[in-house]
Parts: sequence; C-alpha cells; structure tokens
Amino acid sequence: MSAPKKVVLAYSGGLDTSIILKWLQTEYGCEVVTFTADLGQGEELEPARAKAEMLGVSKVYIEDLREEFVRDFVFPMFRANALYEGLYLLGTSIARPLISKRLVEIAAAEGADAVAHGATGKGNDQVRFELAAYALNPDIKVIAPWRLWDLTSRTRLLEFAEQNQIPVAKDKRGEAPFSVDANLLHTSSEGKVLENPSEEAPDYVLQRVVPVEQAPNEPEYIEVSFEKGDAVAINGEAMSPATILTKLNEYGGKHGIGVLDLVENRFVGMKSRGIYETPGGTILLEAHRGIEQITLDSGAGHLKDSIMPRYAELIYNGFWFSPEREMLQALIDKSQEHVTGTVRLKLYKGSARTVARWSDHSLYSEAHVTFEEDAGAYNQEDAKGFIQLNALRLKLLAARNRRLKG
Amino acid sequence: MSAPKKVVLAYSGGLDTSIILKWLQTEYGCEVVTFTADLGQGEELEPARAKAEMLGVSKVYIEDLREEFVRDFVFPMFRANALYEGLYLLGTSIARPLISKRLVEIAAAEGADAVAHGATGKGNDQVRFELAAYALNPDIKVIAPWRLWDLTSRTRLLEFAEQNQIPVAKDKRGEAPFSVDANLLHTSSEGKVLENPSEEAPDYVLQRVVPVEQAPNEPEYIEVSFEKGDAVAINGEAMSPATILTKLNEYGGKHGIGVLDLVENRFVGMKSRGIYETPGGTILLEAHRGIEQITLDSGAGHLKDSIMPRYAELIYNGFWFSPEREMLQALIDKSQEHVTGTVRLKLYKGSARTVARWSDHSLYSEAHVTFEEDAGAYNQEDAKGFIQLNALRLKLLAARNRRLKG
Amino acid sequence: MSAPKKVVLAYSGGLDTSIILKWLQTEYGCEVVTFTADLGQGEELEPARAKAEMLGVSKVYIEDLREEFVRDFVFPMFRANALYEGLYLLGTSIARPLISKRLVEIAAAEGADAVAHGATGKGNDQVRFELAAYALNPDIKVIAPWRLWDLTSRTRLLEFAEQNQIPVAKDKRGEAPFSVDANLLHTSSEGKVLENPSEEAPDYVLQRVVPVEQAPNEPEYIEVSFEKGDAVAINGEAMSPATILTKLNEYGGKHGIGVLDLVENRFVGMKSRGIYETPGGTILLEAHRGIEQITLDSGAGHLKDSIMPRYAELIYNGFWFSPEREMLQALIDKSQEHVTGTVRLKLYKGSARTVARWSDHSLYSEAHVTFEEDAGAYNQEDAKGFIQLNALRLKLLAARNRRLKG
Amino acid sequence: MSAPKKVVLAYSGGLDTSIILKWLQTEYGCEVVTFTADLGQGEELEPARAKAEMLGVSKVYIEDLREEFVRDFVFPMFRANALYEGLYLLGTSIARPLISKRLVEIAAAEGADAVAHGATGKGNDQVRFELAAYALNPDIKVIAPWRLWDLTSRTRLLEFAEQNQIPVAKDKRGEAPFSVDANLLHTSSEGKVLENPSEEAPDYVLQRVVPVEQAPNEPEYIEVSFEKGDAVAINGEAMSPATILTKLNEYGGKHGIGVLDLVENRFVGMKSRGIYETPGGTILLEAHRGIEQITLDSGAGHLKDSIMPRYAELIYNGFWFSPEREMLQALIDKSQEHVTGTVRLKLYKGSARTVARWSDHSLYSEAHVTFEEDAGAYNQEDAKGFIQLNALRLKLLAARNRRLKG
Repeated sequence: MSAPKKVVLAYSGGLDTSIILKWLQTEYGCEVVTFTADLGQGEELEPARAKAEMLGVSKVYIEDLREEFVRDFVFPMFRANALYEGLYLLGTSIARPLISKRLVEIAAAEGADAVAHGATGKGNDQVRFELAAYALNPDIKVIAPWRLWDLTSRTRLLEFAEQNQIPVAKDKRGEAPFSVDANLLHTSSEGKVLENPSEEAPDYVLQRVVPVEQAPNEPEYIEVSFEKGDAVAINGEAMSPATILTKLNEYGGKHGIGVLDLVENRFVGMKSRGIYETPGGTILLEAHRGIEQITLDSGAGHLKDSIMPRYAELIYNGFWFSPEREMLQALIDKSQEHVTGTVRLKLYKGSARTVARWSDHSLYSEAHVTFEEDAGAYNQEDAKGFIQLNALRLKLLAARNRRLKG
Repeated sequence: MSAPKKVVLAYSGGLDTSIILKWLQTEYGCEVVTFTADLGQGEELEPARAKAEMLGVSKVYIEDLREEFVRDFVFPMFRANALYEGLYLLGTSIARPLISKRLVEIAAAEGADAVAHGATGKGNDQVRFELAAYALNPDIKVIAPWRLWDLTSRTRLLEFAEQNQIPVAKDKRGEAPFSVDANLLHTSSEGKVLENPSEEAPDYVLQRVVPVEQAPNEPEYIEVSFEKGDAVAINGEAMSPATILTKLNEYGGKHGIGVLDLVENRFVGMKSRGIYETPGGTILLEAHRGIEQITLDSGAGHLKDSIMPRYAELIYNGFWFSPEREMLQALIDKSQEHVTGTVRLKLYKGSARTVARWSDHSLYSEAHVTFEEDAGAYNQEDAKGFIQLNALRLKLLAARNRRLKG
Repeated sequence: MSAPKKVVLAYSGGLDTSIILKWLQTEYGCEVVTFTADLGQGEELEPARAKAEMLGVSKVYIEDLREEFVRDFVFPMFRANALYEGLYLLGTSIARPLISKRLVEIAAAEGADAVAHGATGKGNDQVRFELAAYALNPDIKVIAPWRLWDLTSRTRLLEFAEQNQIPVAKDKRGEAPFSVDANLLHTSSEGKVLENPSEEAPDYVLQRVVPVEQAPNEPEYIEVSFEKGDAVAINGEAMSPATILTKLNEYGGKHGIGVLDLVENRFVGMKSRGIYETPGGTILLEAHRGIEQITLDSGAGHLKDSIMPRYAELIYNGFWFSPEREMLQALIDKSQEHVTGTVRLKLYKGSARTVARWSDHSLYSEAHVTFEEDAGAYNQEDAKGFIQLNALRLKLLAARNRRLKG
Repeated sequence: MSAPKKVVLAYSGGLDTSIILKWLQTEYGCEVVTFTADLGQGEELEPARAKAEMLGVSKVYIEDLREEFVRDFVFPMFRANALYEGLYLLGTSIARPLISKRLVEIAAAEGADAVAHGATGKGNDQVRFELAAYALNPDIKVIAPWRLWDLTSRTRLLEFAEQNQIPVAKDKRGEAPFSVDANLLHTSSEGKVLENPSEEAPDYVLQRVVPVEQAPNEPEYIEVSFEKGDAVAINGEAMSPATILTKLNEYGGKHGIGVLDLVENRFVGMKSRGIYETPGGTILLEAHRGIEQITLDSGAGHLKDSIMPRYAELIYNGFWFSPEREMLQALIDKSQEHVTGTVRLKLYKGSARTVARWSDHSLYSEAHVTFEEDAGAYNQEDAKGFIQLNALRLKLLAARNRRLKG
C-alpha cells in the first residue's frame, strides 16, 4: 500500500485517537480530517473539535447520528430478534458500519484516499470497520495504526504523547482497569480486571445500569407500541427512534435490566469475556417478541427464528454491508408488515417481562382456542386425520424396522 | 378402526381419566389396564391404584419414571439449549413421548391392542401421544375419547360420572379457573381466566414459583457442574439427574425464577396462551450456556444454535421418536464431549445469571485475548490478511456496482 | 359443512371432471360454474366449453393463463434453483396455486360459495389446491369429490357416466396404463405400470421428450439471456416468458433432455414413483445456475443454496400462498438484481450443459485469478493471515485436547 | 516463525515440488523428508523416490492411500450427497486433509517441526492443507514456499532448477496450457487457456473422460449395491471402496460421464473457472440418491438436504478436521443405517440415470400409493383433517388481513 495523502480519522477526542492523529501526520506527512459522531455514547463532543484543531487537522466533522443509528441500524436488527450466541444484543457490532459509512462518505467529499480507525489487531472492530469501508469503496485505503506502529505499551504511548505535545488528562496516566465502548444501544466493558472468566465482575464495572440489588423494590409497568416491527411509542406517547431507545434506557437502567456477563467467540478466532449493559435493548427485544407472538403466524415466526443465528453472526462478524445480510433483511422486513400493536411489560429487579399484548393485527383467536364450546370454529375430528397423515411415515418406518428384525 | 379388545390407559387418578376409564369399558366392552407414572408432578399416586381397582381394571401399573424422564429426555434436550419460539422450555412436550413409550411397552407385555389418553382434540398433546405411539408400534390403536364422545360439557361429564358411580371430589364439582399440567420440569397453566392475552395473569396461577416480589431480598449463589453436557453436581455435591432437577426447582422456586407468559403457535394451527413455570430448567439452561461458552468453539456453538429452532420445533410437535430428531441429537451429542466444568450463578428476584465459569476443558485463552503483551501468542499482522481476503468479494461487488453505474 | 349453493369447478373437459360436474349437481342440487385454464398442457380447450354447456353449467370460464403461469409462478421459482429432494423441478406443484387463485377469484365474481377439484385423497394436489384456496379466502368451501363419493372403482364411474348421459370416449372405457398431468413446465406420469420402482419405466411413457437414444447425433448450442434472474431471450431474440419456456421445451424435447425417474416423499406421508419430463425447465435451471456463477458472490449464492430445500419443500407441500414462502421469495428476489447476462449451453443426448457465460455484471476477475503475474491485484501474503486466524480456534481446540490427554 | 529444522514435504516428484525441496534445503539449511502418496492420481510413484534421494533427502515415504482415501474421506462425504455450489463434487477438496494428516503423522514419527506443501497463495488448497495440519498439531510449522519465495515466474523457476542441478524434463520447459490436479475421485483442470469463462473449454482438456460425442452409441446398465450408505458391490460383485471407485471411473470415463465446467467461489474471495472430471463420483452420487429415495423417509431426507450445503462448504473451505464437520457427519451417518439396497443405472452419452431401485429396507409401500383399491391401508378421509389443520393458520391470516382491509 502506498502512503496515504489525506486521511479521514474516526476520532473520539480521547488520548488514543489523538495519538493516532499525530502519528498519521508524522508517519505519512499526510493531511488529516477528523470525524466524531454522536451515537449516544454520552460524551461531550465539542472538546474533540478544539483538540483536533489544536493538533492541526485540516477539517473537523462532528455529527449527531443518533436517529440514523437507531432508525437504520438498531431497529432493522431488532426486527430479527438478533442475539449472537444466544445472548448478546450486538451493541458494539451494529454501530461500526454506520461509522465506516460516514468515514467513506466524508473521504469522498473531502477527496481523501484513506480512512483510519483506532481498533486493535485482536478484536472484531477492526474487521467491522474495514469490511464496511471496503464494501462501500473498494479502492479506499484503511489504516489501522494499532496493527502498524511500535507503540505497543502504555509507557511508549505516553512518551509519544509527550513528545508530540498531546495533552494527557491526569486520570489517563494510569491505566484504566478495563476498556469501555458505549453508544445509545449499549455499554461494553472488557479486558484487564475482567479477563478472568472464573471471577465475578465487580459492580463498579456497571456504567449505566444500576446493580440489581439497588433497583426499586416496586415493579413498574410500561407499554411499548409497534408499527411494522419498529417501536413507535411508549405509554401511548409517539417518539422518534432515538428518543424511544433513550427512554427505554432510562427505564432499564433504573431497574437493573440488561446486564450480561458473556464469554463469546470473536470472529478472529479467540474467546473473550465482556460485560454488556443493554438496558433499553433488552426491554425492546422482550417487547418485540411479545408483539410478534400475536401478529406472526408460525410459518413466519419459525422461519425468522431459523435464520436469526446466521443474521446475528453476519452482523457480529462485520458483514452488515453484504448481499447476504441484505437478503436476510429483505426476508425479515417482509415478515414485519403486520407486527403492529402494543405490549405491556413489567420491569422489576433486572427483568423485563411481557405480561399482556394486544393488536388490531392479532392472529390470536379465542374462538378457536377456548376450553368452552367454540361454536364450530374448530372441528376436533380434523385432528384425527392430521395426526394419521403426520404419523404415516413414522408407521412405515416402524413397520420396516420390525420387518427387518422379523 | 375396529373396537379395541384391551386398552392401556394413561391414568392420573383424577376425574377426567376416571370417566375415560369407565367410558372405554362401557363403549367397547373392553378390558382396561391403567398406567400411572410419577414424572415429578407432585401428586400422590397410590390413590390412583385404589380408584382404578374400584373401577374394575384388570391390572394397575404405577411407576416412578423421574430418573428416566430427566436422564433420557430432559437432559438430552437441554444439551441443545432448546427453546420453542425463542422462549418456551418445552416442559409439557418432553414428557409425552416417555408416557407413550411406556403405554406401548405395557400394551405389548399385556397383549393389549390399544392405548388411550386424555388429551383433547384442540391441543398438541394428542399429537405428541399418538405420533410417539405409532412410531413405536405401527399397528397400535390409539383411542382419544375427547375426540370421540359426546361428553362435551362439564355438566354432561358430571352426569356420566354420577351414572357410573365415579366419585367426584367436592372441589371438582365447580370448574377449575384454568387447566394445569405438571411434571418435574415444569408446570403449565392455560385456559379460562388465562384465555385473554391482553390481561396480565394473576399471581394465584403460580403453582411452584414464588411471585417475584416475594422472593428473598438477598441473592444466592450456586455452582452447577457438568460432564459431557449434563448436570452432575450442585455446589460440588454429585447427584442423580432427577435429584439435580428437583434441587434446582427448589432454588428456582424460592427465587421466583422461570415464569413465562407466552402466546405460542400450536402445531394444530391456532395460537394459545400459557403461563409456564420452569424454575430448575431455567437455571439449568443458563448454566449450560455458561459452560458451553468456554468449552465449545464457535464452529460447534454456531452450528448448534442454527439447528436448535428446528430441534425444538420437532419436540414441540411431537416428533421425539423420529429419524430427524435422532439425527439432530447425534449432532448435538457429538458437540458435548468436552462440555465439562462448573458454572457459578447468581439467583435473585426472578433471574439466574452466570457470573463465573471454569473448566479443565476450557478453550478460553487469556494469553491470546489479553490487552497486555501476549508473548507472541497472537500476531496482530495476521488480522490484515484475514480482513483483506474476507473483504475481497465485497470489493469485487463494489467495483462491479460502481462500474455499472459508470 | 353445509351443502354448497354454487360451485366453481376446475374442469378439464375430460371424463373424470365431467363426472364430478354432474355429481355436484345431483349431490347438492347446486349451480356449477366451470373453469378451464390453458396452462400449456397441450390440449384443445374449446371442447370443454361445449361439453360443460351440454352438462348444464351456468357459466363457462376458459382462460389462457400461460403467460401469468410462467411470469408469476415458474420464473420466481426458478430464481431459487428450486429442486425438491435434490432432483424434482416441481412442475405439478407450481401450477396448482394459480388454478386455485382463479377458482377463488371466479367464485367471488360469480357469488359462489364453493370451489371443487378433481384431485384424489392420496396425493399432494388436493393439499395444494385447498391450502391455496383457504389462504385466499378463509370462508370458501372446497369440495373434493374423490374423498366424498362412493365411485371408488372404474366400473362404478362408468356406470355413473352412463346413468347421467355423460359421453365416454371409446378409448376411455379401458383404463389408462398410467396417469398423466401436464402443463407448460412439465409432464408427469405415475401409477399403474409405473408403480413398481424396481422396474424401469418403458419408453412409451414419454409424452414430450424423445427417448435419448433417438435424439440427434449432433450437439446443438443455444444462448439464453437473463435479466434480474429471469430468462428474456434465446439466441439474442427477446421473447415473453411463456414463449421462452415453449421454445426451450422444443429444444429439450428434441434432445431428450429433462427426463427424471423419481421415488419421492409425498406430503401426505407415503412414497410415490413418478416419471417427470421437464425439457425446457431443465435447460433453464442449468442456464440460471450458469449465469449466477459469474454474477452472484459466495455470500449471496451460499445463502440461496442453504434455504433452497425449504423453499422447494414449501412449494411441493402447497404453501405457495404463505408468509414463509413470500419471505423466502423476498430474500431470493433481492439476490437477483444483478443476475443479468448470457449463458451458452450445449444440448446433446439428454444433457444441457453450460459451456460459457458472460455478463456486464460479472464478478469474475481474471486479474485476480490468473496464474500469470497479476499486477498487484492480489497479495499472496494476505493468505497467511487469513489462514492463521481461521486456524486459531482449531489450534486452541487441538491444544486443549492434547492438554487433556497429556 | 523461527526457521524449521526438519521438514516433511508433500512431494509429487515433479519439477515444482523438486524445486521446493531444494529451496527448503538452501533457504533454511534444514533436513527434508519427502512424502509421496498414491491417491489414485494415476502416476508412477517410484521415480519420486529416486529423485528425492538424488536431491539429498534424509528419508522417503511413499504410500498407497487409495483405500483409506475412499473409505474414510470420499465415502463419508458421499453419504451427504455433497455438492459445492450445487454442482461440484469436491474432488480436490476431499483429498487435502488426508495428505495433511499423513504429513503431520510423519512429522511426529520423524521428529520434524514443520511440514511443507506446494500450493500457491491464491488457491483453496493452501487453506485446506494448513487448517488440517493445525487442527491435528497446533504447534506444527507449515511452510508454503509459493507465498514466500521470489521465484515468481517460469523463467526464474527454471533458472533455480538449473542452478541447483534439478533435472527438467524437456516437455516441462514450456508452460503447460493449463494446470491439473488428479486423484481417484476426480481430475481438475484450470488456469491459462481456461481462464476465460466465456469461451468453451477445448476437448483436449479432458484427461480421463471421453468426449461425450465419442461415447458408445449403446447404453450400458450397471447395478450398484449399498450397505449403510456406502457402495459395496457392482453388478453383484463385492469390492473394496477403492476398487469400486476405480471401476465406476472406468464406466463413467467410457460413457463421457461427469464433466463439469464451473465458475466457483474460492474461499479466498475470488472466482475461478475449472473443468472437473468426476466419472465414478457422478455415478455414485446418482446411485446413492437412488437408494436413499426408497430407504430414507422425508424427515431424514429433508434434514440431510437442508444441511448439505453447509457440509459441502466446510469441506471446500478446508474444515474437514473441525468440530462442526464432525457434528454434521454424526448427523449424516445416523441417517444411513438403513441405506442398504441396489440401484440400477443407465449409462449413456454423458449421463448416469437411476432407472430402478430395490431394497429389503425399502419404505416404499405399493399398498399405500396404489391407484387401485388399497384394502384399507390408507383412509382418504384423513386427508381432510390433515388439510384443515395445515390450513388453519392460513385461514386465520386471511381473516385478519380481510378484517384490516374491511
């Protein structure tokens, strides 16, 4: 790869990406444009502008992408009830493609030939950033300094910062006890004190969810309404996608909901242990399942369930912008046409549980299921034929096997 | 179907199956053998013997099948992390094939040409009983009185009971407010007051799990140990399969764990709403997932996840004794050879959560994942090639699409 | 089911459906409307009009549905490369939903409360007709005389015909040596002389494909062009869907292409043996695969392949009008956006083989694959990292297993 | 990677691997052991011994692995009816893991710390060799000279050969017009004159199958017998696995059977075009499907079909020695317990077609399927209930949709 001339850097304003910024300038003598996105990580972004300007970038992009993030990435994913390895709500995975998308778009607008990110060579995020970038621009260069430079210890990073007049906050001089990633969907914590999966994670790891013992002693009920598979209102009040997720995060955080301690399989081949807090997402998944229970028939529901693991794996592995993810999305979206209605949930001490659901689109038929007289809605005699023909091949098998044992 | 000469009846000792017993005798003039199994439903079985004898059966079978139930049905199913429609632990479904198996075996031993069950024509259980029976004996007759007789109201049932000197307990004269099925794995409640899925189920429905608000205010920790995918010990104490599940039920019941309010799709085509209590099973699933996290690699884990919905559907639909369930079981069992180790769980207010896990069979490598210097365990440069080749087809797609847009 | 007042009958004009027509009139005293469709079965339809009128129907519908059949049913199915049980091109299955659709539409237009078909109680077609009808009108009555009447032998059928002045062609007095179904996609033959699967089917069974030994001794080449997954031209000449399939049938029939001797699993639980002739369809499948080879990437192609068996099973079982078929169709159609280009095939002695393919949408990159110097298109060193990270979990497994044996 | 001390080289005796042999010696100053396997590629192996000894290797292994190859690799794969991308019989893919297995075993026996292969950095074979090696010995070094050296042109290779006294056969001085790989299952040809997929491959590419026009003008019939899914006899004569495949290759080669022109997706991300000749394998697949048609029920058959694409992909990608391949194999093998019987095939002008099949294990029931009176084997009335309950959810959907439109 020839040296880049102009680079768009995914820039948080923190120490690490500031070092990357400077390193790009010194290593390649190239122009740097920074891009800082508000994905709901809960940090002030304006300081990043000042810092980037101080470090001599040619242009600063700061954007609030929260609505786009929830509307075009989080909600489509939740239509699928996606869970990676049965449990993980994909909070980090789903944010990466949006960042790459904007990096590539800004590179095109700015005439940059490269983009850069601050993910390490051991993790999934490098894969997600880069697959997305290449899928959107096959000629873009992607620079991953953590795989390239020799600043492989905290000491050397701090030395580089000092040599290059990068301000280091006092509390960043020591190492953090674990590493954190956050956006509107979740906060993940991993590394260092969390690296031993046989030891319980300490409560101080939690960033946005209250420890469950400290959650209120009284349950709280909320109602979430859906239209075509997406949440549109809470307790009857219509809200934008990002507002809904923000609100659900508040409910979930208050009630200790959505904490997961997981050892997962990274795409790059190793296992890692993470603590995930997904308060709003956990409520949203439960509610979405609740409304699907009455609005999807078994054909649609079971098909969705059967392809979900593959869909989740694609997102986890970084293939959001791939034909197969889009094909699965087409399938899933097709199923959501009638996923409209309201779910009532009970929030209490770490749990969000569906307790009631109703919809004009409901397929539930009390007339059919009732233990009472059903006025001819269902003919119990039909069950005999249904069973007999489902049994026929089993009978033929049993007769064959008996014959052979003869 | 010609009239049966000798019938083995799945007999609970309750009013409904006592009426069936008598109806079989009067309708067909046939000999009846009763079979009553202890599957952990928590009822005295000996009264069934006296009642059956009083009703004039030719032979009474009463058997404790709890160990067989857990060892050969529940545990194999839990190896798959089976959930029907994402949530249901299949507590009723998994008990039916064992009952049918014994009915058919007893029929063979007693020279009976038919078996009979007390499931109605609207539900799944009729399908499960009959598919299992036919798969084990293609020539057996299966009699389902609820699909045949004209005792279609409570009043007529009670009349029949009186006409035939079947004792009716006072509390059975009125109708139960909902219908219950129970075994060592779960209790299900459905019908009547539960038929409206837009109304929250009342707490009095709960049979074996304490309402979550009444659960202890202090968390409790337990450790569950596995060998080859099956639970073998709690807190270091080795126990038999049924004992483990009994013990986990106690823990779960005490802490309000394992209550599910579900609207599900029955195999016969309608939706129904049930309240399921699966206290021990819910803990067991969480623990099994916890131990798999460190002992299965992604190849095995993801393959299991991808076939799980189909496996669960087969069990739900009554195809336990089918080639495809056995094929999937072979796949699942093959994956469990190293699923050995211990999981620590925190039980609190309705939740069981894995907080730690360890195993001699662990695949977790702190050497690889560490944020610290890894002594060469992992070469971060490899990630570049990994990403480049994973990206190649995406780049070719992007180049094609760009070329066409010209 | 209460007696129908007005019935729309799927009417071929042949003896069997004429008997059904009369039987409906006599059994129910109801009005009958006939519907006869040209699906390319190769029979004159106008005689059906005269016959129906003679038998006293209230209205006669005769429609040429060939274009709709190919455009809206056959082509969408071929986008999926659908094969049932690995081999069967679903020629009968795909025609049934269209017939039901028109039956239900005509019933609505005519104010009829029922539809009727001539399929027997042993086969798949009854299921396909009825599931489609119920999916389109949940209140329609479907009458299947073969499951209802007592005309269960050839003799009794002929007696009924004579008693009711239904003309019987001389060659219909004896029984046909096998049963035939035909439409533009295929001809199937089954029953009677074909019932023993251990005996080779005689050549005289073939209706539209020449026995392969009699096919020309010289190969013939044709070029089939596709746009978005559908065939649009042969040898550069644009044609309508039905014209293309007709033309491909001619090519295939001449060269002995598309004969299949299959023992298959019917949805109703038994096995049956059929001889299928699908000359044009066999060429079309080969050509479609040929063009997909260069226009789909592996992500899209492998996903399609993995869901194809389920898609084919749905069509075979009669679930064309179901949410899950439509969801899968959405997935498949999404994949076909770039399936545009031309395939050259060699037709010879029973085979159609792709020998060349080209497309503006091609993803094939000679620059990448070449054995020659590739000018940097591909960096062979990337393969090392790709392999190392794909191998990582396998190494961890091997190390674990070695450690345990140690 | 530190330099290897002793290397086991997969050695064909040809020019390329001879150059590798010498290059390993000169590059690393290491001891080299050669391993040459007879997998049925149809070449004399003894010349490889003399050449290796002349080049100064410390030990020569020459082994006939044909029986192991067919018994433990080809046959298990054929139990799955494995086809990659719908068409490819995986002839190259299935041979690689066996070679790696022996390389690793020999390395252990000889105290070697590395193995080496002659696959290039663009293809799949490097992946297959190396994943298998790492799965069997996580500490082995794998040396892939084509990814390491600078002998990147024919000229430089020949120069190296001359400088190192490696004899070059006259016909190897020019470049071959395409590249060939062969074993008992297949011959593949690719590269150079075949690189343009829009040009038909010339007949002279074919190595072991006669051009179809030159095949006999008379069909030939053979009978292949199976036991538990594996072929065991031809025309009633029992044979060993390798003998059966050899014999089927003769039949297929003579009749022009098993030629495939395919553009496929390599695991490394690019498309390539190959001409595959798999004469015996093509017959074997057809025969295996034929016997499964009567011995597998739909539950087993459809499950196999649904996982086949994934199984084939795993083998293609080099994951033979992986938990997921072994899990799928367990599933497949479980299905084959009754796949026993005989298939009669007609071989003619490029095609092998099942025309008859019979088995003591047959599930085909003429009693059920017959158009004649079936003596009560099947009750046509059962079809009504079967259809009604399958239709129930479709009716509920239709009623819902109508209600909403209302």
